[in-house]
Amino acid sequence: MARPTVDFWYEFASTYSYPAAFRVEEVAERFGVAVRWRVFALGPVFKAEGLPADSPFNWQAAKGRYMWRDVARLCADLDLAFAPPVPFPQPSLLAARVALLGEDGGWGIDFAKAVFAAEFGDGEQIGERAVIAGILERLGLDAGPILDAATGAGNKARLRAVTEEARALGIFGAPDFVTADGELFWGNDRMEAAFRWALDHAENAPRGAPGD
Amino acid sequence: MARPTVDFWYEFASTYSYPAAFRVEEVAERFGVAVRWRVFALGPVFKAEGLPADSPFNWQAAKGRYMWRDVARLCADLDLAFAPPVPFPQPSLLAARVALLGEDGGWGIDFAKAVFAAEFGDGEQIGERAVIAGILERLGLDAGPILDAATGAGNKARLRAVTEEARALGIFGAPDFVTADGELFWGNDRMEAAFRWALDHAENAPRGAPGD
Repeated sequence: MARPTVDFWYEFASTYSYPAAFRVEEVAERFGVAVRWRVFALGPVFKAEGLPADSPFNWQAAKGRYMWRDVARLCADLDLAFAPPVPFPQPSLLAARVALLGEDGGWGIDFAKAVFAAEFGDGEQIGERAVIAGILERLGLDAGPILDAATGAGNKARLRAVTEEARALGIFGAPDFVTADGELFWGNDRMEAAFRWALDHAENAPRGAPGD
Repeated sequence: MARPTVDFWYEFASTYSYPAAFRVEEVAERFGVAVRWRVFALGPVFKAEGLPADSPFNWQAAKGRYMWRDVARLCADLDLAFAPPVPFPQPSLLAARVALLGEDGGWGIDFAKAVFAAEFGDGEQIGERAVIAGILERLGLDAGPILDAATGAGNKARLRAVTEEARALGIFGAPDFVTADGELFWGNDRMEAAFRWALDHAENAPRGAPGD
């Protein structure tokens, strides 16, 4: 029987996407579901909702204070290095555009995890071209052509389209898990609920998913 | 050894406080922690944070649509009747003032669960004095004097003070779980994490908790 596939929507500026990225593969394996990583941009989603484009953790002070403590606790549980990036949020568009290319190239997941580790573990400035180039090169990739393609008009338009797709699914924050039958689960802490839903509703999933 | 005590902060207008209220006792028993129910008012907290006093689920449309679906899923899992109250949010101050008296009287938890069931299960208007009186009477209580005391200046001031206490703990939403050593966990879905924290840090808890 096919493993159900769940889409994992993430945004590089999103703090809770970081622990999610570093546990999603293990949890998916345990549940027996396949995961498709989907990068998108949260800023345009906030803007379309009439909210400030800035992180809600900046314009909602008490919620922001809680988030830093909460993510630190979560990362400690996962033995994951964590330090709040400065500035926060980090400009994430360049990394998102590169990750989009990686989804085709088969290196998207490794790239995404390396970006998250650089940003939230090592305090690197992921908005800088040199930082992204360094990450690509450490993955054995040719950074120059990738960065050129990532920042070309076609790929920029593609990220906008993907972000529209996310909005159409009901996405308003990150990370998210969307099952084949369209159920949306928001938040690192709902990962397990999404996988359980996918298994319980597997008869609705399209055929041909990984694991056939 | 003393069972660690965790404070369960709830607000009657809060949708996620409803499933939390109906599973907190069973989960606490399973973990071996004691729970103290603490009612508070979220509106003044939003206001003090510079946010609209209205529910964030009303002024953030996509998040609101998600929340209704998510709470319906959670309640289905718990076999708990659920229908969105109209209007939402329900005026919750009267019920909160009464519940505060119930914390002293030993009937606070039964009253709170009855209010949540009336509001989210039966579509009742919990802002109406007659509805609250009916709930008190079904609990075998003398509604008139309780409602008079609840709406007296002293008890109103007490709810304001309790709400200030919640804010000082870092609370910005509901429900919440606060451990004896001051760790804040926000959301129905963090109940288990809070109880685990309380057990792991029990040596920091004050002596004399229930279960001694």
